[in-house]
Amino acid sequence: MGLAESPFLQACAGRIPSRTPVWILRQAGRYLPEYRAVRSRFPDFLSFIRTPEACAQVTCQPVDILGVDAAILFSDILTVLPPLGFDLAFREGEGPRISNPLRSGDGRELPLFDPVAELGYVHDAVRACRAALPPRTPLIGFAGAPWTVACYAVDGGGGKEFSRTRAWLHSDPSGFAKVLERIADVTADHLAAQAQAGCQALQIFESWGGIVAPSDYRRVILPSVERLIARLRERTDIPVIFYCNGASTLLGVLDGLPADVMAIDWRMSLSVARAHVGPRPLQGNFDPCLLHAPHDAIRKAVSLAHAQAAGGPWIANLGHGIMPDAPVAGLKALVDAVHALPPVVAEIED
Amino acid sequence: MGLAESPFLQACAGRIPSRTPVWILRQAGRYLPEYRAVRSRFPDFLSFIRTPEACAQVTCQPVDILGVDAAILFSDILTVLPPLGFDLAFREGEGPRISNPLRSGDGRELPLFDPVAELGYVHDAVRACRAALPPRTPLIGFAGAPWTVACYAVDGGGGKEFSRTRAWLHSDPSGFAKVLERIADVTADHLAAQAQAGCQALQIFESWGGIVAPSDYRRVILPSVERLIARLRERTDIPVIFYCNGASTLLGVLDGLPADVMAIDWRMSLSVARAHVGPRPLQGNFDPCLLHAPHDAIRKAVSLAHAQAAGGPWIANLGHGIMPDAPVAGLKALVDAVHALPPVVAEIED
Repeated sequence: MGLAESPFLQACAGRIPSRTPVWILRQAGRYLPEYRAVRSRFPDFLSFIRTPEACAQVTCQPVDILGVDAAILFSDILTVLPPLGFDLAFREGEGPRISNPLRSGDGRELPLFDPVAELGYVHDAVRACRAALPPRTPLIGFAGAPWTVACYAVDGGGGKEFSRTRAWLHSDPSGFAKVLERIADVTADHLAAQAQAGCQALQIFESWGGIVAPSDYRRVILPSVERLIARLRERTDIPVIFYCNGASTLLGVLDGLPADVMAIDWRMSLSVARAHVGPRPLQGNFDPCLLHAPHDAIRKAVSLAHAQAAGGPWIANLGHGIMPDAPVAGLKALVDAVHALPPVVAEIED
Repeated sequence: MGLAESPFLQACAGRIPSRTPVWILRQAGRYLPEYRAVRSRFPDFLSFIRTPEACAQVTCQPVDILGVDAAILFSDILTVLPPLGFDLAFREGEGPRISNPLRSGDGRELPLFDPVAELGYVHDAVRACRAALPPRTPLIGFAGAPWTVACYAVDGGGGKEFSRTRAWLHSDPSGFAKVLERIADVTADHLAAQAQAGCQALQIFESWGGIVAPSDYRRVILPSVERLIARLRERTDIPVIFYCNGASTLLGVLDGLPADVMAIDWRMSLSVARAHVGPRPLQGNFDPCLLHAPHDAIRKAVSLAHAQAAGGPWIANLGHGIMPDAPVAGLKALVDAVHALPPVVAEIED
């Protein structure tokens, strides 16, 4: 079986997959003992993701251990920040910190850069992953959406409010839009380079899409996402997945976005999402905390999601990254329950 | 002018107010130097809220300084936790911490208690506030919704994920529903006692309503809210405001809730909310970060919200608590801009 028969890629293309595909947000992660063993070889997170062989090793783990239908490159949405001039560090247990955040009115302009030169370690990791993965397993590359990356660039990390970024959005929307535009351009280049290096699909993470008013998103932020996808479309035709955390706030706003797959968090139902996207492929959206439930509750939740996703292809996934304390057995129960389902066929126009 | 002419109470009653009323979530708060002066007299937050005279002092401050149309009792949504057997502390800059959280399967049963005996300090604060406020200014009492209180009771504070509470919701929904029921009952008693002590309206804070799937909210959580409001209705007929943070996720779920006023956060538009609630009163929903914007941007946002709220009474407010770094001048600009508006009259059936 080769990539052409990948249920994940069939679903991305809007076709009826041979079985319901599933992969897991942050599936290469701390909940796996095998991941922690590799992680412990590195003094810090950045040196880990800058080592292609280690990235390939942890990228393959969930494919082997769980039998998921796609691998996602092990990297980070903030890799674009250092070449944009930011001093980025990951402190243990704290997440990212930027010591020189961008501030409204500081006159600093973000440089354009060549991602092939500056982010070669990511593209080398793509090549190492592709070489290490089974030939039938697609590899997903990714980047942060411009707004989500800007939240860290402006607030500097260390919280989930991003109030400085939101204040800038209100105070100087046109100046802030220029920042988003620059991030969109380098992100498009970076994603195109990942496609070039061997990815079969690309996911854009709008992890903080749900913290702004829909009118502000539409007016100031959405143009940068459209610009990013348009520039990417000029360079590659592999499927683009747009993941939005807090999608219930924005689904009306995002309806026209030219992404192949809409991926949502758990705080809206797949049936509401289906009503918005029509027969286009959907991805998501189990609550990561579901994995702590008894396995029969997990199987019930899988059946319910399957019914709610009817009307188009569905790629099962969590609605947000798996937590470090997630039980592997619960995750296996979820993956197995998805694979025991018939593919979603009802109402697909084919 | 007495309470009968209060624009806030007119709007709560579904009538056309004499002017558009406005008050601010957490309006008695650290952004005011006058508040910080009172706060500094107390070694910790709990001793502050247990001193009725101090509560009255800070409750009145925003009425005097900003000219808002209602006062809200200075207290906390977690006051019900100590009489429920929880060891609650507020650490500086960290928020609440519970050292003996409730855990699924620990067999602990939450006691019923008499709020008049156990929470008399809150009701004394209501009386002190009522005595200190101008006779024309309504006083709002409040409590947390059962789910929001349970999030702290189970997770113990210290984060915004509440993953233990969410895991319990998935693992043992019927056992967890019993916890919510008990919190609903003591909360109804506590709110009724606040009404009895002199409040003119009551607000229920579902501050963490937006972190669960709508189907889980509907099935497990909503019955406890309905129970709370039903028990409250037996005891008092003053208006009940239901505030939901993350309302975009739940507005369909909450549509039938028998609250007088629906209050929403900034991450959905008032026009979407209006489409759901019809001519019932709406409250909200400016992004707290808007207050950092130039005053003409604030005035534009007020005009836009006014237009979006058309079709029923609107009580202007932020969509979430004001932040400690909010500029008082920005808040004054917002209050003044609201007061310069005509009341929302379009399409009110009267």
